[in-house]
Amino acid sequence: MQEFTKTDRNKVKRIPKRGHYDSKTIYEILDAGFLCHAGFTVDGQPYVIPTAYGREGDMIYLHGSAKSRMMMNLEKGIPVCITVTHLDGLVLARSSFHHSMNYRSAVVFGTAHKIEGEEKQKALFIISENILKGRWGEAREPNAKEMKATTVLCMEIESASAKIRTGPPGDEKEDYALPVWAGIVPFFQGIGKPEDDPLLSEGIPVDKSVKNLYEKD
Amino acid sequence: MQEFTKTDRNKVKRIPKRGHYDSKTIYEILDAGFLCHAGFTVDGQPYVIPTAYGREGDMIYLHGSAKSRMMMNLEKGIPVCITVTHLDGLVLARSSFHHSMNYRSAVVFGTAHKIEGEEKQKALFIISENILKGRWGEAREPNAKEMKATTVLCMEIESASAKIRTGPPGDEKEDYALPVWAGIVPFFQGIGKPEDDPLLSEGIPVDKSVKNLYEKD
Repeated sequence: MQEFTKTDRNKVKRIPKRGHYDSKTIYEILDAGFLCHAGFTVDGQPYVIPTAYGREGDMIYLHGSAKSRMMMNLEKGIPVCITVTHLDGLVLARSSFHHSMNYRSAVVFGTAHKIEGEEKQKALFIISENILKGRWGEAREPNAKEMKATTVLCMEIESASAKIRTGPPGDEKEDYALPVWAGIVPFFQGIGKPEDDPLLSEGIPVDKSVKNLYEKD
Repeated sequence: MQEFTKTDRNKVKRIPKRGHYDSKTIYEILDAGFLCHAGFTVDGQPYVIPTAYGREGDMIYLHGSAKSRMMMNLEKGIPVCITVTHLDGLVLARSSFHHSMNYRSAVVFGTAHKIEGEEKQKALFIISENILKGRWGEAREPNAKEMKATTVLCMEIESASAKIRTGPPGDEKEDYALPVWAGIVPFFQGIGKPEDDPLLSEGIPVDKSVKNLYEKD
């Protein structure tokens, strides 16, 4: 298990006991999601853009249109911050002040570079599998034209931290006597029933990757 | 209805038909959530941090510990980007290339400043109501010590855009004949059963704000 060195960049300053620096904890948070918020700065202006990702080892893979602003900026090798957040619930305390949320978030830092050839193909597979396991083998693979229209970036994770809150609220001693309900409202990612494309040919059942998604739940 | 001027900063470059610049659309996306990802830059390094927010008019309110790095940096008036994303579903096409997601995202730009007194109190109310309507009136209000420990920031929205994708996949003409399932896997924010604080005194029922949360569903 790797431990990221605590520096000014990745240190969890507020409530340090919620901070984690081991790659196991951080990568579990990354692997539990597929949508990140990527931050980058152009001419002093920060941008935060939602985008899909995949991870393998210490590498995060991003993809997008070759013409996208984010891709064109990130491939220059500028500093990037990628954040993945899972909201696990509202924490309702007896006082407004002690209200909180249960969450798992990972904040990772690095710079990205464009990848090509076999590496690019593999990265697209990793991103696709991270979004929906098994789907890559079901759909038609990208052709040369589609590959050309797609930029794939690899970001080596240089530094990272996770922040996690779990459990019930913590109230001031004297507030426990108040007649206020306190506890947790759990949140989770809900998945609705799959909806056929209106143009779906008759007799094509939902693919295995989609079925697995519901069985997992 | 206000329209934000299209500039280099807020223009949706990729798939411009998904871009929206009217405040109604953008504010609906903001108001449908309470967790944003705030981006800011310190010494050239971008940071993306998940945090709660509330909106009123063209103002976004953020709160946090007076000692938090984000609060201490943002209150200097540096450029901020606040992004709110709702993932509405996976869009499964017949080709890998045309896979997508249905989403609503709002990206807003501005600079923040610290607020005090009545304005601060009102902003905390707005943030609290945005997270859980009615909760502010149920819990004990912040005392002077708690108010002092909390920084509240107001960011006027200078520029903004939304990006929205809805509907079924769009495939290449020749791919419609493939025996691949295509359609939508809808995603939503699921809410589990409320869990009492283990230290809850007997006979205290779930408060109205929490009940309303489930009736809304």
